[in-house]
Amino acid sequence: MNPVELIRKKRNGNPLSKDELHWFLGEFVDGNVPDYQMSAFLMAVYFRGMTPEETAMFTDVMLHSGEVIDLSSLPGVKVDKHSTGGVGDKVSLILAPMVAACGVPVPMISGRGLGHTGGTLDKLEAITGFRTRLSIQEYRSVLEDVGVVLAGQTDEVAPADRRMYALRDVTGTIESVPLIAGSIMSKKLAEGIDALVLDVKFGDGAFMQEYDRALALARTLVGIGASAGKQTLAFLTAMHQPLGYAIGNWCEVVETIECLKGRSVPDLMEVTYVLGGAMLYLGGKASSIEEGMKRCRSAIWSGKAYEKFLEVVRRQGGDVNLILDPARYPKSAAAADVASVRSGVITGFATRALGLLAIDLGAGRRVVSDRVDPKAGIILRKKLGDRVESGEPIATIFTDRKDMVEDLADQLLECVTIAHEPVQVDPPVHSLVTPNGVSPWTTPQQY
Amino acid sequence: MNPVELIRKKRNGNPLSKDELHWFLGEFVDGNVPDYQMSAFLMAVYFRGMTPEETAMFTDVMLHSGEVIDLSSLPGVKVDKHSTGGVGDKVSLILAPMVAACGVPVPMISGRGLGHTGGTLDKLEAITGFRTRLSIQEYRSVLEDVGVVLAGQTDEVAPADRRMYALRDVTGTIESVPLIAGSIMSKKLAEGIDALVLDVKFGDGAFMQEYDRALALARTLVGIGASAGKQTLAFLTAMHQPLGYAIGNWCEVVETIECLKGRSVPDLMEVTYVLGGAMLYLGGKASSIEEGMKRCRSAIWSGKAYEKFLEVVRRQGGDVNLILDPARYPKSAAAADVASVRSGVITGFATRALGLLAIDLGAGRRVVSDRVDPKAGIILRKKLGDRVESGEPIATIFTDRKDMVEDLADQLLECVTIAHEPVQVDPPVHSLVTPNGVSPWTTPQQY
Repeated sequence: MNPVELIRKKRNGNPLSKDELHWFLGEFVDGNVPDYQMSAFLMAVYFRGMTPEETAMFTDVMLHSGEVIDLSSLPGVKVDKHSTGGVGDKVSLILAPMVAACGVPVPMISGRGLGHTGGTLDKLEAITGFRTRLSIQEYRSVLEDVGVVLAGQTDEVAPADRRMYALRDVTGTIESVPLIAGSIMSKKLAEGIDALVLDVKFGDGAFMQEYDRALALARTLVGIGASAGKQTLAFLTAMHQPLGYAIGNWCEVVETIECLKGRSVPDLMEVTYVLGGAMLYLGGKASSIEEGMKRCRSAIWSGKAYEKFLEVVRRQGGDVNLILDPARYPKSAAAADVASVRSGVITGFATRALGLLAIDLGAGRRVVSDRVDPKAGIILRKKLGDRVESGEPIATIFTDRKDMVEDLADQLLECVTIAHEPVQVDPPVHSLVTPNGVSPWTTPQQY
Repeated sequence: MNPVELIRKKRNGNPLSKDELHWFLGEFVDGNVPDYQMSAFLMAVYFRGMTPEETAMFTDVMLHSGEVIDLSSLPGVKVDKHSTGGVGDKVSLILAPMVAACGVPVPMISGRGLGHTGGTLDKLEAITGFRTRLSIQEYRSVLEDVGVVLAGQTDEVAPADRRMYALRDVTGTIESVPLIAGSIMSKKLAEGIDALVLDVKFGDGAFMQEYDRALALARTLVGIGASAGKQTLAFLTAMHQPLGYAIGNWCEVVETIECLKGRSVPDLMEVTYVLGGAMLYLGGKASSIEEGMKRCRSAIWSGKAYEKFLEVVRRQGGDVNLILDPARYPKSAAAADVASVRSGVITGFATRALGLLAIDLGAGRRVVSDRVDPKAGIILRKKLGDRVESGEPIATIFTDRKDMVEDLADQLLECVTIAHEPVQVDPPVHSLVTPNGVSPWTTPQQY
């Protein structure tokens, strides 16, 4: 086979065969297809897309470019959740122990913050001592013993994806549905899962801002899951405002602890319960998503979810005393309330800009080598639809960058739209995508 | 500036500014923008194209990436011709001395065979001793003394194009109108010309097979020429059959000599006279293309064109005795007539396949490092519309690859379509493109 002919074939809009994809990606990983040919191919995929079959084969080839963890010897239906990334999205931290407490094993491999979004690994590592770099053996034994494991991707998993992802980042080829889907699913399928629930975000704070593109991605992800023989569901959820109140690593852990102890944060917990209900349903521990949601709620109310969180934190080396008494955590050099300059109703958040602002406070990385300050972040005091009076705090910001506080507070105010008329706030979970199609989702009033 | 942002800008269909193109290409030539970013950019250009202004700026940036030869101290309007490449296209060899004999200086920088097409440099080098690698000083002085110079591209000319062309070749990004146009025009404008006549081929034997794509290329080329302040015309000419009878380096030189001595090869000489007439018109030596054609014809009839050819061959080190007596040239190990197996009228040539067949005989390169056999080639005995009887030769093939003769003769027969009904053969020159638009071209009956 000839790399130029394969690039031209894709460029001309023709799907590649499995043999062709296997050869091309294999030669790329082995260094025989140079980066400049792969980047031309990736740009051609950006424009021409891939057929569903081709995307499934592409994912399968990336999956088998590295180690595929086999958890079949462990009992139970192993179910994971993946989110396409948002602002204030600490769902995984609450969800994973909650679902595990209901008897569904959760092998979860997470990533770091990317662009304006936060990453579960960075949040977990805000807990002093928490180890996310586990060997495959450790990963298996934590899952076996605790029922949940929270880890980062190892070097052995999907090396084709890792190399390709790095190249996409510097060649303007990130925003392609088949490339995103292949990247997500090759990593997820390598974890050893039996089933997967996907949280595909849309709205200003999501990577796929338009609903239709997010829906296309969700359909593609579910299609790949089905092709791989894994039960897969996706929910399309809104990212028109940060999820919950906290943005930033440690402050999101604190919000997690509060929610695990029963605090009501409506949008955050609605997403968490819906995803959890679906995981229980796929995991065979509930006869419907709705019944699964009720079981999840019981796991929160009974304190079992919180206990499971303490157990996994302890097992992965985290300082449990910080969870038991979050006030012990080090404090930022500056903590400043940001007061509204007018009265009215909050009708909009520039969510992506808030994510970038949190990075400026120190909560994320501008470049890969940046160090994350786990203390830095934003705690919103208001959500969409809330009334605010002039002089009342809209948010509190935490940072060690004292000289930037005033400037960043001003920027934060620009991220908030205040009007005189109240607005209709859409519920956070919009629709459900299964291999059979898309249906609107309405979260039950009682669960 | 950030290369990823420029790639994304183009990918999203937005034109780049001159500053952006200048920065991006400059950093590429300096090695700061790696090949993988340039190849993603080139693929984005393939899909998104460039505006006419952007294409002109792109060309200008490539032009000024290297040395721009200044011939302004030499008298006369310097005019060159460029062809997009065909099979049997020896026009330059006849045209350049013919136009120079009429008093228009012709500084001509040519290329080698590419794909299925032949290259003027390879044809010139079939003349034993002929030197095409000239220093800029030699190039100037040959032009000044002889009125015509026939050379290859030097390393100093348009290095951005040279690096980019090599990358396009291996990344499936050759077939893009702005990239082709920028590549051609940056090299041509670097030669020191005042005006340019373009021969843009269409049909089976051309790179741009469809007329509409060839027309788009012609318009773009003429637009760039106009932007650069050079008088530029283009003719769209048919490549439905090889031009003239000879395909292969030395046999094309022999056909050149015959035509310079007045032999009538209708399609070949019609193209040569039309292009020559246009060069004289642009060069200020004729008041119209038609008048220029008459003057060119006089230069052939008077023997002045042939004398000029001898002069430039001698001056550039070629063995003039071979021109005076072509029979002295070494002979191929095999020369085989290919006889028709049926009677009828020739209605079609697979022109591209004939070009590739000539390469198989030894006349061109499969890979860059191949050595060209100047003796190898094909002499057609018939053209489109000619009658052929069963057993009568359609062509003669020349090669040192004796064991392949039978196989290649069979292949040649497959390149020829013979029918019982005569066909209408279109004239070779189809239309004229000027900065003001396109018009059909009808070659006058008498000139």
